[in-house]
Amino acid sequence: MPKQYFSLRNLKFTFQEVHNAQEVTKHPHFAHLDAEAMDMIIDSAVQIADNILAPCAVEMDRQHMAHFHDGKVTVHPSVKKYIKAIGESGLLAGRAPLEDGGSQLPEMLGASIAFIMGAANNAITAYAGLTEGSANLIRTFGSKTLKDTYLPKMYGGDWQGTMCLTEPQAGSSLHYITSSASPTGEEGKYKIKGQKIYITAGEHDQTDNIIHLYLARIDGAPAGTKGISLFVVPKLRPENGQLVPNDVKTIGIFHKMGQKGCPAVHIEAGNNDECFGWLVGEPHKGLSYMFQMMNEARLGVGTTGACIATTAYYAALEYAHERPQGQSLNIKGQDPNAPQTLIINHPDVKRMLLFQKAISEGSLSLVMQGSQYADKIHTSEGEEKEKYQLLLDFLTPIIKTFPTEMGQQSVSSSLQVFGGGGFCEDFPLEKLYRDIRITTIYEGTTGIQSLALLGRNITMKNGKAAMLLFQEIMKDIEASKTHEDLKKYANALSAKLGELQKVTQHLVGFAMKGEVERFLADATLYMEFFGIVVVAWQWLKQATVAKTALITKSLEGEELRFYESKVHTMRYYFAYEIPKTQGLATRLLDDELLTISVENEILV
Amino acid sequence: MPKQYFSLRNLKFTFQEVHNAQEVTKHPHFAHLDAEAMDMIIDSAVQIADNILAPCAVEMDRQHMAHFHDGKVTVHPSVKKYIKAIGESGLLAGRAPLEDGGSQLPEMLGASIAFIMGAANNAITAYAGLTEGSANLIRTFGSKTLKDTYLPKMYGGDWQGTMCLTEPQAGSSLHYITSSASPTGEEGKYKIKGQKIYITAGEHDQTDNIIHLYLARIDGAPAGTKGISLFVVPKLRPENGQLVPNDVKTIGIFHKMGQKGCPAVHIEAGNNDECFGWLVGEPHKGLSYMFQMMNEARLGVGTTGACIATTAYYAALEYAHERPQGQSLNIKGQDPNAPQTLIINHPDVKRMLLFQKAISEGSLSLVMQGSQYADKIHTSEGEEKEKYQLLLDFLTPIIKTFPTEMGQQSVSSSLQVFGGGGFCEDFPLEKLYRDIRITTIYEGTTGIQSLALLGRNITMKNGKAAMLLFQEIMKDIEASKTHEDLKKYANALSAKLGELQKVTQHLVGFAMKGEVERFLADATLYMEFFGIVVVAWQWLKQATVAKTALITKSLEGEELRFYESKVHTMRYYFAYEIPKTQGLATRLLDDELLTISVENEILV
Repeated sequence: MPKQYFSLRNLKFTFQEVHNAQEVTKHPHFAHLDAEAMDMIIDSAVQIADNILAPCAVEMDRQHMAHFHDGKVTVHPSVKKYIKAIGESGLLAGRAPLEDGGSQLPEMLGASIAFIMGAANNAITAYAGLTEGSANLIRTFGSKTLKDTYLPKMYGGDWQGTMCLTEPQAGSSLHYITSSASPTGEEGKYKIKGQKIYITAGEHDQTDNIIHLYLARIDGAPAGTKGISLFVVPKLRPENGQLVPNDVKTIGIFHKMGQKGCPAVHIEAGNNDECFGWLVGEPHKGLSYMFQMMNEARLGVGTTGACIATTAYYAALEYAHERPQGQSLNIKGQDPNAPQTLIINHPDVKRMLLFQKAISEGSLSLVMQGSQYADKIHTSEGEEKEKYQLLLDFLTPIIKTFPTEMGQQSVSSSLQVFGGGGFCEDFPLEKLYRDIRITTIYEGTTGIQSLALLGRNITMKNGKAAMLLFQEIMKDIEASKTHEDLKKYANALSAKLGELQKVTQHLVGFAMKGEVERFLADATLYMEFFGIVVVAWQWLKQATVAKTALITKSLEGEELRFYESKVHTMRYYFAYEIPKTQGLATRLLDDELLTISVENEILV
Repeated sequence: MPKQYFSLRNLKFTFQEVHNAQEVTKHPHFAHLDAEAMDMIIDSAVQIADNILAPCAVEMDRQHMAHFHDGKVTVHPSVKKYIKAIGESGLLAGRAPLEDGGSQLPEMLGASIAFIMGAANNAITAYAGLTEGSANLIRTFGSKTLKDTYLPKMYGGDWQGTMCLTEPQAGSSLHYITSSASPTGEEGKYKIKGQKIYITAGEHDQTDNIIHLYLARIDGAPAGTKGISLFVVPKLRPENGQLVPNDVKTIGIFHKMGQKGCPAVHIEAGNNDECFGWLVGEPHKGLSYMFQMMNEARLGVGTTGACIATTAYYAALEYAHERPQGQSLNIKGQDPNAPQTLIINHPDVKRMLLFQKAISEGSLSLVMQGSQYADKIHTSEGEEKEKYQLLLDFLTPIIKTFPTEMGQQSVSSSLQVFGGGGFCEDFPLEKLYRDIRITTIYEGTTGIQSLALLGRNITMKNGKAAMLLFQEIMKDIEASKTHEDLKKYANALSAKLGELQKVTQHLVGFAMKGEVERFLADATLYMEFFGIVVVAWQWLKQATVAKTALITKSLEGEELRFYESKVHTMRYYFAYEIPKTQGLATRLLDDELLTISVENEILV
C-alpha cells in the first residue's frame, strides 16, 4: 500500500495560506478556537485516519464489504470504532453550534477533517457524513423534544442518521415521491408508509439505532414538491424509555461497483402499518429543509471527489518514483546495455502526474473557497452576509461537479501510471477508480447540477450572484499582478472570464426569449467551461501566495520545492487545461440544434 | 438485461456500404466467398453470440469468475462450448489461408465476427483471440513439424494459445526480458527458464492443453531487443504420442477489476529444469515475429473498445426509452400534476446518447477502415500493396487508441444515463465500465501507441504513410461534396486536416533539430487530435453513403430512420467532438516546457 494518502502541508497551505482561515477565526463566532486548538483538531483527525480508517480501507472493499442476509446488514467492525471515535472527539458535532453541544468549527476546518478522513477511506466517511447531516436537520428544524431525543445519541456516534429521498419511481425528480404520512391524532406523530431506495448506511450492525430523515406526503397534501414533508423515522422508536421496533424493514441491498464498505439499501416503512414518524418543522416544507442537508451533502461529495483523486495521485507519484521501465527518449535507438529509467522520467508520465496534481489540489482549493464563504456567512452581517450566501449558493453545483467529473479523469490517469498493475488488486487504484464513479451521480447528477448552475444560479437575483463571483475573481487577478511573471496568467484568466461572459449572454438570450429548452440544452458543457475557469482562478490564487512566499521568505529544501511546485502546477493548468474551454465555447456559441427539435427516433 | 447488444444493420452498413466489402471479395484471393456465404458466416457468429456468449456474460463476471486454487484455474464451463463451437465452425481459423486448412476470410469479415462476439461477451473472446493469434504465429514462422503438431489442435479449439511477453521487470519495455533458453543439443529444442506475468488465458480447465508463445533469450544472445527469440512452450508437451507435463507452473492469478471471466496468470517455466521450448523461426528474431501478432492484437483491442461502447450504448438507449423521470424543461415551473416524461426527452440525455452513438459507430467504422486496408494488401500488388500496408501500419496505433480511450468515456456516459442504477449490479453497465478500463493498457498503453504514431509512423519512409492517409481522406472529402449539404462538413474536415499538418510540422521541427524528447513530450495529445480527425473522416464517409441512399432510394420506416440517423450523428460529431481539437492544437503549438527540462522534485 502507498505510504502517503494526502499532504498535510498542502492542506494547511490551502486553508491557512490561500484561504486565510486565521482571519475567519479572529471573529467572535469562532473565538473559542485559536491556531493551536485548530492544529490539535487536525491532529486528532489525522490520528483517527491513520489508525482506524486507512488500515481497513482496502479490506472493507475486497474482503469485508457490506453484506445483506436475512434482513440484516453486516459491515466491517471498524465502522463502530470510527463512529465512536469521532463522536467522542466532538468531530461529529463539529459544525453544530456551541449552544447545542457542538464544537462550532469553521467550515474550512470541517472540510479539512472530511478531506483527511475521506482520503484515508472514502467509503467509511459516508456513515459519519450522513449522521452529521441528518442530525443537523433535526437541530435546525426539529422541535425541542426531537432534539433532546435524537441529537445526543447521533452526535455521540451511538445512532446512525440517513437521508431517505429516492423512491423507485422518483430519483432526480423528487416531485413524484409517494411515501405517505397519516395523522395519528397525536401532534406531530404520523403513520408512515412507503419504500425508499439507495439509502446509504440505511441498515447495519455498528450502531444501536438508525434514524431516517424521511420525505413523505401528509394525506391530502398538494401534488408536487410543495406537498412534501420531512419526518424523523427511527428504526427503533424510543417508547417509555425503551427502544421498540418501528416497522422499518430492509428488503434488499444494492450491489455497488464501489464504496462497498458502506451499504446502500432498499427499505420499506409501514408494511405492517406500525411505522411512526415525527414531523420535522412545518408540514409541506420538507423539501426545502432537506435542501439544507443536500447542499451540505453536495459540498461533501465534491470533497470526496477531491479526496479520492488525491489518494490516487500520491499512489501514482510513489509508484512513478519506484518503477523502472524503458529508457529516456533522449537515448537514440535505445542502448541495449543501459539500465532502465524510472517512469517518472518519461514526459508522458510526468504530464499525467501534473494533471492529477492540478486536478486534485485545484479541487481541494475550490472546496475550501466554498468553505471560506460558508464561514464568512457567520462572521458578517447584512449585505456582506447576503453576498457570501449568494457566492456559496452559486458555487455549490460547481464544487459538486468539478472535483467529481475531473476527479474521475484524474483517478483514471493515476491508474494508467500503474499500467497492468493498476487494473489489478495488487494496488488500490482499481478500487479508487470504482469508488469515485458514484460521485457524479450522488446528490444530484452532473446534469442536474448543470441545470442548477445555468438555469437557476446564473439568473438568480438578476445575475447578482454571478456578478459577485466575477468581482471576487477580478480582485484576485489584480492581486496576482503584483508579481511580474504572473501577469501573463492573470491576463489569460481575465480573457477567459470575458469569453465566459460572452457565452453566458448568448445562452441567457434564449432564456429571455422564453426558449428554455434551448437555453439549457448544453448546460453540462457550460458547467465544464465554468469549472475550468473557476479552478484556474484557484490556481492563480495559489500561485500568487506561492510567489509571495518565494520572494519574501528565505526558503530551502522541501519548503522551497513546495512553493515552486505550486507555481509550476499553475503553469501546467494554464497550458494544458484552460485551452479545453476553446472547443466548449465554439459549441456553446454554435446555433446548430442537435438534441432538441429532433425526434427520439433519430437515435437508433 | 438489455434486449440488444449490437446492431446487425449498422454492422452491415459499415462493412458493406461504407467499406465496400463486396469489392474486396470479387478478387480471386477471396473468390471462395460470395455474398451469401458471407451472410451465412455472419449468421453463425450471431448464433454463437446469442446462444452461448451473451447468456453467460454477466454470470462469468459476478458469479463464475476465473478462480485460482492449488495451482489450478477454473473458469465458466461456457468457455469450452464457445471454443469448440468456433473451432468446429471454422471461425477460429478464419484468417488462416485455405492451404493451411483455414477459411481465408477477409479481415472485414473477421473483424465483424470479433465485433459481434465481443459485444455479446468481451471477456470470453480473449480466449479465442489469443488462440487464433498464437496459432497464426506458428503458421507464419514455425517449421512444418511445429505446424503439424499444434495447428490442428489450436484451430480446432482443443488447445488454448497464449502470448507470453511481460515479465515482472519488463512490460512496456520488452528490451529487458530475462527468460532464458539453453540449447539441448537437439535442433530447435531448448530448455526454458523464467517467469511471465499477466498471461491472459494462461491457465484454465476448458481446453486439453495450453500453448504458450514465449519470448526468451538464447544463452549468449545480444542484449536488448535484438537478442530475443520466440518459442513454443506447451503446458503439456507431446512426447511419443502422449502429452507429458512440461514444467510450466501457474504460481498466481491477478485479481482484475474487469474481464473477470478470463484469467490473467503468473507462470513460471522451468523451475524444475524440465521445461522445453521449440524455437519458432530464426534465433533473435522473436520480437519482430511477435509484432505480427501484436499488431493484430492491437486491432483486436480497438475492436474490443468499440464492442463494449456499443453494448453500453444500446443498454442506455433502451433504458432512456423506458425510464420516466422529471418533466420537460419546457414546462415552466414544473406542473405538479403532469406525468413524468421519458428521460430520452431530456436534451442532456439525448446529447449523451448521441455521444455514445458517435463514438461507438465511429470506432467501428475506423476498425473496419483498417480491416479494409488489410484486405487490400491481399488483393493488390507492387506499389498498391505497399500503399495499403503503410496505411494499415500507420492507422494501427490510432485504431488501438481511439476506440479504447473514447470508448471509456462513452461507457461512462452510458452508465450516467442509468443514474444510481448504473453503479449497481441491477444493470450490466458497471461491469462494462470495469471491463473497458484495461483496453488502454493491453498490448501497449496509450502512451506507447502515441509514441508509435508520432515517433515512428509520422516520419516513416519520409512521411510517405502520412501523406498516403491524407490523400485517402482528401479523396473522401471530395466525394462527399457531391452532396450540397455535406459541403460544410467536408470543408470543416479539410480545414482540420490543414491544422493537423501545421501541428505535425511544428513538432517534426523538433525532431529535425534532434530534440527527441521535446518532439514526443505531448505525443498523447497529438494522438487525441489525430484520432478525432480520423474519426471525423469516418463520419463524413458514413454520411456520404447515407445521403446517397436517402436521395437515390425510396426509403421509409426503419430504413429511412437509419440513414437519417447517420447524417444526424455526423452533424453531432462535427458540432461537439471536432471542436475539442482546438484546445489540443493550442497546447501542441505552445512552446512552454512543463514536462521536460524540469526536475522530478517539481512534483510533490
